[in-house]
Amino acid sequence: MEHLREKELSSEQIYSGKIIDLYVQEVELPDGKTSKREIIKHPGAVAVIALTSNGKILMVEQFRKALERTLVEIPAGKLEKGEKPEITAVRELEEETGYTAGSIDHLISFYTSPGFADELVHLYITEDLIPLENKASLDEDEFVELMEVTLEEAEEMVANGRIYDAKTAYAVQYLQLRQAMKGK
Amino acid sequence: MEHLREKELSSEQIYSGKIIDLYVQEVELPDGKTSKREIIKHPGAVAVIALTSNGKILMVEQFRKALERTLVEIPAGKLEKGEKPEITAVRELEEETGYTAGSIDHLISFYTSPGFADELVHLYITEDLIPLENKASLDEDEFVELMEVTLEEAEEMVANGRIYDAKTAYAVQYLQLRQAMKGK
Repeated sequence: MEHLREKELSSEQIYSGKIIDLYVQEVELPDGKTSKREIIKHPGAVAVIALTSNGKILMVEQFRKALERTLVEIPAGKLEKGEKPEITAVRELEEETGYTAGSIDHLISFYTSPGFADELVHLYITEDLIPLENKASLDEDEFVELMEVTLEEAEEMVANGRIYDAKTAYAVQYLQLRQAMKGK
Repeated sequence: MEHLREKELSSEQIYSGKIIDLYVQEVELPDGKTSKREIIKHPGAVAVIALTSNGKILMVEQFRKALERTLVEIPAGKLEKGEKPEITAVRELEEETGYTAGSIDHLISFYTSPGFADELVHLYITEDLIPLENKASLDEDEFVELMEVTLEEAEEMVANGRIYDAKTAYAVQYLQLRQAMKGK
């Protein structure tokens, strides 16, 4: 779709941070006019659907400063430079839940906010959880509360807004679809 | 979950833009230590699952400068100040597809990137499309290509990466779930 492409005329870095960078770009539109694009660069992230042997879903509750509230989410975290997403996924699982994964499968990857950010989330699933003898430690600025919920409880949390983010909503719907397909 | 709360010590606005604002905040963590949070403020957005009378899904292809590529997405757009999400949803549908909706239902809302942004997407569905006699015009800096695809074609696009964003992946999965439930 080459005719939709926007040509970059200039790019100014406004901010370089711990997690995100901000650029403001001048672009030439398909009709020759110019416009401004505000772009967030993000290292990308992973998230894990982790199911216990009795079919419960591991969730973590944490405070999200951007929203000024807590959310219940599947275990997740951002990619470290040069780290393979699959490795990050297992590391974040270990840090946030105290379990490691004997095996882990990639389900899907998606951009979260293509209108202004390049954040790509890689979603994994594991049903092969092994409790760690020594719990891995969280990042210094991370505080989370672990919980194990049934799919029905997760559906309720979507309905009442305790679960309120795209990756976790996708994960819950994925498990609903899997259950619906099993019955066929 | 009050004990997870981060107390704001200071907040500095780094950038105020056309669509996003950037703040850097100093926070006090639950253990009394301090940390920095980088926060993007966004007006929020809407997206619409729009199904034609023969069951096809309206999709739009557009160039996403943040990703340097085109994506195929469900019709979507950002909220205007003070505009009700349902009104925005119908307006964006009209602008991007040339159809309006006789009725429209709210499906779910979710935060796209709770780790660093407050963008909330409101997802709607309509099966009550009415072609407009005079096509509404797009924003000046918007160029999109309309297509109508079957659910099977949409699933293929998820698999081959033409569909690659969270809201559209969620929408396709929603339609898969609906189809699976119908067969029960």
